[in-house]
This record gives sequence, structure tokens and C-alpha cells, in this order.
Amino acid sequence: MEQDKSSSGRHDDSPLSTERRLASRSKAVEDLRRKLKYFFMNPCEKFKARQRKPWKLILQILKICAITFQLISFGLSNQMMVTFKEENLLTFRHLFLKGYIDKNVDTYAVYTKAEVYDHIYFIIDQYANLQNLTVDNHAYERNERGCTPLSICQDVYRNSSIFPENETFYLDPQIDRECVNIYPLQSLVNAKAVRNRLNFTLDFQRLVSINVHLALKAINVQTVQHHELPDCYDFTITVMFNNRAHSGKMKMSLSSDFDMKECKDGEVTEPSARTIHFHLLSDLFIIFACFTSLILCTRSVINGIQLQRVSKESAFFFYTTG
Amino acid sequence: MEQDKSSSGRHDDSPLSTERRLASRSKAVEDLRRKLKYFFMNPCEKFKARQRKPWKLILQILKICAITFQLISFGLSNQMMVTFKEENLLTFRHLFLKGYIDKNVDTYAVYTKAEVYDHIYFIIDQYANLQNLTVDNHAYERNERGCTPLSICQDVYRNSSIFPENETFYLDPQIDRECVNIYPLQSLVNAKAVRNRLNFTLDFQRLVSINVHLALKAINVQTVQHHELPDCYDFTITVMFNNRAHSGKMKMSLSSDFDMKECKDGEVTEPSARTIHFHLLSDLFIIFACFTSLILCTRSVINGIQLQRVSKESAFFFYTTG
Amino acid sequence: MEQDKSSSGRHDDSPLSTERRLASRSKAVEDLRRKLKYFFMNPCEKFKARQRKPWKLILQILKICAITFQLISFGLSNQMMVTFKEENLLTFRHLFLKGYIDKNVDTYAVYTKAEVYDHIYFIIDQYANLQNLTVDNHAYERNERGCTPLSICQDVYRNSSIFPENETFYLDPQIDRECVNIYPLQSLVNAKAVRNRLNFTLDFQRLVSINVHLALKAINVQTVQHHELPDCYDFTITVMFNNRAHSGKMKMSLSSDFDMKECKDGEVTEPSARTIHFHLLSDLFIIFACFTSLILCTRSVINGIQLQRVSKESAFFFYTTG
Amino acid sequence: MEQDKSSSGRHDDSPLSTERRLASRSKAVEDLRRKLKYFFMNPCEKFKARQRKPWKLILQILKICAITFQLISFGLSNQMMVTFKEENLLTFRHLFLKGYIDKNVDTYAVYTKAEVYDHIYFIIDQYANLQNLTVDNHAYERNERGCTPLSICQDVYRNSSIFPENETFYLDPQIDRECVNIYPLQSLVNAKAVRNRLNFTLDFQRLVSINVHLALKAINVQTVQHHELPDCYDFTITVMFNNRAHSGKMKMSLSSDFDMKECKDGEVTEPSARTIHFHLLSDLFIIFACFTSLILCTRSVINGIQLQRVSKESAFFFYTTG
Repeated sequence: MEQDKSSSGRHDDSPLSTERRLASRSKAVEDLRRKLKYFFMNPCEKFKARQRKPWKLILQILKICAITFQLISFGLSNQMMVTFKEENLLTFRHLFLKGYIDKNVDTYAVYTKAEVYDHIYFIIDQYANLQNLTVDNHAYERNERGCTPLSICQDVYRNSSIFPENETFYLDPQIDRECVNIYPLQSLVNAKAVRNRLNFTLDFQRLVSINVHLALKAINVQTVQHHELPDCYDFTITVMFNNRAHSGKMKMSLSSDFDMKECKDGEVTEPSARTIHFHLLSDLFIIFACFTSLILCTRSVINGIQLQRVSKESAFFFYTTG
Repeated sequence: MEQDKSSSGRHDDSPLSTERRLASRSKAVEDLRRKLKYFFMNPCEKFKARQRKPWKLILQILKICAITFQLISFGLSNQMMVTFKEENLLTFRHLFLKGYIDKNVDTYAVYTKAEVYDHIYFIIDQYANLQNLTVDNHAYERNERGCTPLSICQDVYRNSSIFPENETFYLDPQIDRECVNIYPLQSLVNAKAVRNRLNFTLDFQRLVSINVHLALKAINVQTVQHHELPDCYDFTITVMFNNRAHSGKMKMSLSSDFDMKECKDGEVTEPSARTIHFHLLSDLFIIFACFTSLILCTRSVINGIQLQRVSKESAFFFYTTG
Repeated sequence: MEQDKSSSGRHDDSPLSTERRLASRSKAVEDLRRKLKYFFMNPCEKFKARQRKPWKLILQILKICAITFQLISFGLSNQMMVTFKEENLLTFRHLFLKGYIDKNVDTYAVYTKAEVYDHIYFIIDQYANLQNLTVDNHAYERNERGCTPLSICQDVYRNSSIFPENETFYLDPQIDRECVNIYPLQSLVNAKAVRNRLNFTLDFQRLVSINVHLALKAINVQTVQHHELPDCYDFTITVMFNNRAHSGKMKMSLSSDFDMKECKDGEVTEPSARTIHFHLLSDLFIIFACFTSLILCTRSVINGIQLQRVSKESAFFFYTTG
Repeated sequence: MEQDKSSSGRHDDSPLSTERRLASRSKAVEDLRRKLKYFFMNPCEKFKARQRKPWKLILQILKICAITFQLISFGLSNQMMVTFKEENLLTFRHLFLKGYIDKNVDTYAVYTKAEVYDHIYFIIDQYANLQNLTVDNHAYERNERGCTPLSICQDVYRNSSIFPENETFYLDPQIDRECVNIYPLQSLVNAKAVRNRLNFTLDFQRLVSINVHLALKAINVQTVQHHELPDCYDFTITVMFNNRAHSGKMKMSLSSDFDMKECKDGEVTEPSARTIHFHLLSDLFIIFACFTSLILCTRSVINGIQLQRVSKESAFFFYTTG
């Protein structure tokens, strides 16, 4: 607009009109200067200059606070998930490792044949009675044919025989895997009977390692206290008897892998209306604040570009006519 | 001083009356000067100047020693109280936590349903037999209806059911508290019978936490060896089974809150007369010393103010007449 | 070069034969110079100068890589041996020391006569049942007459008697050794019976130390996974009850000495052809590379010496004729 | 020297008698100078000057070596004594403290009445069977009437009663000691019977502490291996149950005091003649070396004083006559 006026003032080359032209030009310069000055003012100065309330600034501050709050809440929820996983690992160690005591993970090992069988039968019994044992809501994983079984796999050297007394050996370095599956419901009937029927013999001379695999399910209901829906977890537990060194010390370790997913069906009844409204409002406010902030920023950028163009042209004009 | 004399010598050539006036004025000046000098002297200089014994200084030193002695005695008595409280906490842990070993407070937890019941029954039995167990003079707290009971409270989610095998849950985040009270005298008859009658079932799926509350009384008689009257203590003990995480690991902790008060009735017979007299004399001396010190300080302040006023007036007088 | 030309140009005013002689000499100088220059060139410059591929350099680099690979492989194989030995020591401690727990090696001791007998009988029983106990392939050492025995030796002061109650003693500082041998096969029949027949009495007053010696054999089959033939080990185990101090604390320690040797007869069937070929090729390549490298180095040294001799002669010749 | 000659040359123009006198004086000066010079020479210079072998130096070096050897031998013998005492303390803890494990000295405590009785009866039983238990040569101390008894003393507040339930107490801070003596030979017959007859009741409410006192004898025969006569030890052992705090935690501690003395009668038969001769010779040599060293030092000091006197007189003489 200012530009238009100044361009129309270019042909006022008459005497009186020259003064008027100069005056009008001076006015245009003043206008542009004021506009530029105002554009680069901070909210505080704007308030002093035109009594304009700094509502844009307030919006930005509120936006930062709300997003920080959301981030912290997300972090806490994440931490809860990590703690849940770690405490479950501890629980599995206490449930499935016989005689396990905290802080001796490194030295946990078995040294005799009887101990190896004992530890394996202990795992079978604990798994069979899991529902009666655990204080948590652990459950067996199910596939279409029922519960997934406990599988005990031994890795052995194929067709090998070792005679230290004669210092002779016949070894085939290829490793065979032999597995036995035990179904929890079946063993619930009679864990002892299962053991006898098990027909499970370890060939310690050829044995490289024993791996016991379990699959369990759990729901992290703690989240409900933080106003979130509980998650479902699939734990894949492996107890490993490592005899790779054949040194008479069979190291034992329990590792647990987990898969977190949304539960199929779940309902949190009667969550306090206040909490729901608070969450809804908080989310709505953040969406609103971010959107408004986006619009305001865009407007400011457009204004800036326009002003830059105008001030460039004006500068050229003033330079040529001034 | 030399300067003063020379300044007063300036008017030696004046008549006789002037000389007398000057002499009297010189005397007044000397008096004031001496007074001021004496006022700002330290005890050592006063002793040198007038052979005055520094009994005020000695009084102050004695006061400081006596108060320090009293402070130390008070500190020791306080430390005894803190030790008593801490050792009682340790004792409660050993009495009420099954299989508790010092230094494993952090990892003390239960992992199976049977263990949870065991630990709770252990607390009940220990509480019922407390008077036969404890080597200290612990006693049950009494209210108007007899002994205060042991109360076992379980916090559970209201009307909830969790099915990890189906990945479904119906949760009500509101927490209900269900409590059972057990009276020690009643259980003294037959702890086992009480257990059976107890009708106490834990719903582990919905369980958030179990809190067992006890109230015990004790008297800290150790103080009698430090010539103080024993204090009575009310201990409020809480054993907490924390299942908030639902991770299969139920953390256990025992905390103890205490309330110290004067005993209702107590008599320490035949305390050695020497000790009583010593305490009485010590207290009397401190009261006397503090009071005398107060009077002396007040007097000194008053003297100071008077001297200040006099010296101001004199200065004015000398200035106008000098 | 410029200098040379100018120096040869100095005699241009001589007759024709002189010119020819000079030309031939100049050519010889040029040849020698070129030879010398080429001798001291690095592979890069040689390639630039004559397009000769730096195959000697490549050979050296390949040789370094191959030897490094061989060294690492040898180091890993050695580490496996050390680990095998250390884990066997741990295993022997767990098998033969009653109530042994990791990390209390320093404080492992016995304090009563009954404990000493218990620990010795425990060792006998464990040794007799070793084949049924160990998860590793431990076996008894055999000599021509059968298994080597477990030998229990007590060192006692000769003909000594000590009466602390009377504060008298008759001591002979010379130490006698009394040994009992127990054959594993014999004890396999009935460990308890052997004990009774053992006629083994300790004279604690005169006792200086008890040493129990065992000899076991084992094969480190872990190597087969690293494509090496397993080694045979002879372990000599000594359990020592040290009563030298006569302080009522009899320190116990188990030490294990080992002797590694090639097994008498062994066969690793069907090792994957690829692995064998790889090892064969790798070894052949290293031999070839090292041999070629040796020949090349020798050639280079001979060339160097010849060149040195030639250049010395030439310099002399040039000097005398120039 | 040059100066001296020149100064004596000053009077060369005097008569003959003067010359003779000067010559004799010059000789005396020379003698004294040589003596002084020789007195301050080190052994090396003396050897160079007069070929005198430095046997005094060698004697000193041998003396230092021999005394160092004696000191080390004494230190080792002393260390053996300290070790003997410390290991005995450990042994007593393991023998008389029920369930004692190394490294929990600080937390060793009892918390229930039954445990207190158990621990006391354990001490009685262990003491009664000591001769059958200990692997060392511990024996009961004897006085004229037989063995010294095990004495169990309880310190209690006199005529006190404490009622924490009513918050009342009647306390007499004076402490009475009640003791029970148990004779080992008597209890050897039947430890259980003794217990029943013992008529030993603890009044836990008034109890301040229980002290169990034992006295044992032992002989440190280890010294015989270091070619020294064994020493006899009297151990006074105190097991303390500290209930001073009345906090329900009764701290237990075992302390052992010892008295080392020469045994009444002892004989070390057939110590190798070589060792005895070695010790005798070593001692004789040290005595001889020290004595010779003393004489030599004294002679040197006397010589020094004489020389000092002579040189002073000469200096005066030369000064006055020169």
C-alpha cells in the first residue's frame, strides 16, 4: 500500500507539488520505519508501545509446559514397563532356578549328574504348578491345540564316545538336538508320573548343552493406576545348562525375552470421570496450542517476507529519487 | 595528653580566676578520661591497674564449661534414644520377618502364594507368643476393650478379573480395603486354631498390597544407668507386602513408627545420694551463674550508656567554654 | 645430470677416439646410475617407472595377515586350555570339599575332630562314586595294577606327647608320614564298609597335616569345536588339612596340578571337508609365503652387495681415468 | 707444608744450635701431623698407607649382619605367637558360638528367649565335650580342687519390675551378679542331666548382661619347627550376652585374653645336633663380636682424647716458641 503511494508520487515534479511530494515521501519513510521497528519489537516493548497484551507469548509458554508434562508422563509410563520386565526376570529366576539366591547369578552352576536332573525336574514341577505358585497373574501361552509345551532340548555330539581312562576318543563335531515336550495341563494331573513316563535320559559324555524353553503370558495391570490401559506381555524364558567346556562345571543361566502388545479385549470400568476429562482436556489443549502456534508462526513468516520485499523496493526508490 | 596540656597552657597568661577555672576543668577532664579508660580496659589490665581480681571473667568461663557439660549430657541421652529406636526396628525385623538376615533388606521378597501365607501366619504366631519370645520388655498395647489387635488388611481392585491367557481384563481402578483383626490373648490359646477359623483368603489377581499392623509398648530402662527416668515408647509396626507392580515379586518391608512419652507411674528406688546431689548442685550452679551473668551484663550496659551521655555533654561543654 | 653433461662437455675439443671413449664411459656411468636409482626405488615408484606390479609388497602384506590370524587362533586355543584347567579346579573344590561355597576359599577350615573325619569320608565317598557324580568325562588314572588309589597321608611328630593341663610336653621335631591307600573299584562295592575296615585313626595331638592325594584323567573335547584335536589331561589333586599351627583351626585347601599331553588314540570323524581344506590351505599358504619371502630377501641382499662392489670399482675407475 | 718450610727457612741465617733446635722441632711437628693424619684416615686409606688389613671394619659388618639375623628370627617367633593367639580366638568363636560364621562378628546377636537358652546350653555342651571336639591340644585349667569351672553369671537390676503395658516401673539401678558354676568332669558324665539339675533361670526383664567365663590351656608346639621350646598359654574366654539396651536385640561377643608363660616341664628329644650347635655358635659369636667392638670403641675414644690433649699442648708450645 505504501509502495503504491510512493510510486504514484514519482511524477509530482511541479514546485508546490515537490514539497508535497517530499512531505508525502517523508511520511512513507516514517511509516515503513515504524512498521519495521514494530516488527522487530519483543512482546514487552509491543505492550509498552501499543498496550497490546502478549497473548502469543503466553500461548508459547503454555505449549512448552503442556508438552513437558506429556513427555514426563510418557517417560514414567516407559519406566514402569522396564521395571515390570526386570522384576519378572527376577521372579522367573526365583521360580525356576532351584536354590537361587539374589546376587549369585555369576556363580550359579551345577556339578553333579543328580543335581542336573534335580534342577530339570524342579523346573517341570514349578511350571506344572505355576498357576498355584505365582503371586502374579502369569498364565500359559496357548496355541490352537492347547497350552504351548515346556520343551527340554539337549544338544549332543553325534555318535561320539570318550574314554579318558584309555586316553582315546571318537568324536563327531556335528551337534544333534533332541527335544522333549511337556504339556502343563497334562503334568498338572501328576507331575511325578510324568517324570517317570518322561523317558528322558541325558548323555553327559556327549552333552554340549541343555535348553529348557517356556512361554508365559502376563498383563501389566499397574498402568491402570497411571490412567493407562494395561499392556499384554509374552515372555519367552530359556534356562540354559552350558556344558560346552566339559570341565565338570555346568553353568546355569536363565534369560527372558519379552514381546509387548495391546491386549485383545480389555475394559477399565468406572475410571473417575475427573481423570478422563483431565486427560481429554489436556490432549485437546495441546492439539489446539500446537495448531494455533503453527498458524501464528506461518503468519509471522509471511509478514516478514512481505516486509522484506517492501523495504528492499523502498530502499531502491529512495536511493534513486532521494 | 601532652597536646592537651600544651593547649591548656595557652591561657596561662590570664588572671587568677581563669587559672582556677581551668584547673577545675582540667580535673573534670582527667576524671572523665580515667573513667573512660577504665571502662574499656580488659580484665588483665584492670588487675594490673587496681589489683582487682577478674572474678567476672572466671564466672563466664565456669558458665561456659557448665553449659557445655550439660549439652554433652543431653546429646548422649538423645543418642541413647536414637539407638534404642534403631535396635528395636532391627528386633522387629528379626521377630516378624521369617528368614530375615541382616543386610538383605533390599532383596527381601516373596515369590509364591504359599510363601505369602507362610509369612503372614509367621507374623501371627510370633505376635501371639511375643511375651514368651522377646528378650526385651515388649508388651501389647491396651485399649479399654483389652489388647489392641493385630490387623491384616488387603488392598484389592474392586470387582476385577484378569485373564492373561485370553489377553483380556476387566479392571476397576478403585481400591477396596478388607481387614481382619486378631487379638493376641485370644490367639494365645491356640494359634493354629485361630488360623483355621481365620477365614482369611487372599485374591492374588486383584491384590495390590497387604499391610499388617501391630502396636507394641516398651520402656527404655537403659536411661536409669545415666541417672535419668526411663521413657515409655509406643511402637506402631507395619509389615507391607507390596504387589503393586504385579510382576510376581512381592516386596516385603517392615517399618516402625514410634511415639515417646513420659511413663504414667515409675519409681527409681535408692539412686545413690551422691549422684542426685551432683545433679542438683550442677543445675543450681548453672541457674546461679546464668542469672549473675545476666545482672552483670545489664549493669555494664547501663554504665556504658551513662558514660556515653556524660562524655557527650562534657565534650559539648569543653567545646563551648574551651 | 646437468652437471654430468657439462663435465663431459669439458673435453669436447679432444680427438675422435677420445670422444668415443668418453661416450662409452658416459653410457656406463648412466647405466650404473640408473641401476642404483632403481635399486633404491620404493614399490610405488617402480610401478610408475616401469609399470611393474608390486607383487612382492602384496606378498609381504598377505604374509603378515596370515601369521596374525595364526597367532590369534593359537591364543584362543591357549585361553581355552587355561579356562579348562581353572574350571576343573572349581569343580574339584565343589566335588571333594564338603559344604564348599564359592568365594570362601580363604576361610574354609574345620574346627572339630568329627568334622575332620566327616570331610575325609566325604572325599572317599565322592571319589568312589566319581563316575556317577561328575557331569564331565573324569576318569580314574590307571597303572598296570588297576586304578591308582586315593592316598590319605598324615604327618605326625614322632613319639610325642603333649599335656597342656600339666604344662608338660615331650616332643620329637622329626615328622613321620603314615599313608593309607584306597582303591576306587574296591570302594565302589561298599563305601561304608571300606570306612569301617579302614582302620584309620588320626592322632590330633601329634598331627601336623593330612594330605589326600587323587589322580584323575580328563579330555578337553571343547577344542573339537575350534577344529583342533582334543588334548588329554592328568590332574593331580591334593586336599590339605593344615594343622601346623596347632591353634584348633585346621585350614583346608584343595590344589590341582595338571599335565597336558597328546591322547594316545583319537579320531574326529567327518570333520567338515571345508574346514580341513581351509586349515590345510592356510598352512600351505603360510609356508609358501614365508619361503618365497626368504628367497626374495636373500636375492635382494645379494643384489645389494654386488651393486655396492660395482659402484665402488666404477667410482675408482672414473676417479683414475676422469 | 710449603708454608711451614718457608717459615722455618726464615731463620736460616741464625747459628747452628738454632738449626738443630729447629730440626728437632720440625721433626716433632711432622710426627704429630702424621699421627693426626693417620687418626682421621678411613680403613681404605689405612690399608693403602700401611697395608693394614681392615679387620675392625669387617668385625663391625659381621656384627651388624648377625644382629639383623637375630632380630628377624625374634620377629618371626613373635609373629608366630600373635598368629597362634588370633587363630585360637577364631577357634573359640567357632566352638562356643552356635551358628557362628566368619565375617558376621558385628551382627551376631540373639532375639528370643529360647535362642538365649540354646546358646548357653550350646556353650555348656561344647565345653563339657571339649576334649573330644577340638583338633588342637586344648585342656581345662586345673586348680587344687580339680578343673576350673565354667561360670555363667547374670547381672540383673536388684528388685526391679517393669510393666510396659501399664507404663509403670519400679527400678533399682544397682546391679546384682548371680553366678552358676559348672565343672567339666561332672558334666562329662551327662550334659543333659546337668542342664536339668542346673536350676538356671534368666529374668529377662531385669537382665543387664550374661557373662560366661571359661579358662583353657594350650601349648604352642609350632615353635618346635623353628628350633625353640614351646610356650604354654592360659586362655581366659568370656562370652558376653549384652542386654544393656533392653531393645530386644541381645548382642553376643566372645573375647579371649591370654597369658603366655614358660611350661613347667618340657623336653624336645633329639633336636638335630647341627641346629643346636648353630644356635650356640651364633650366640657365642654375637657376644664375642659385641664385646670386641666395645673394647675397640673404648680404645679409639681414649686415643682420640690423648691425641687431642697432645695437639693442644703442641700448638701452644709452637705458638710460644715459634
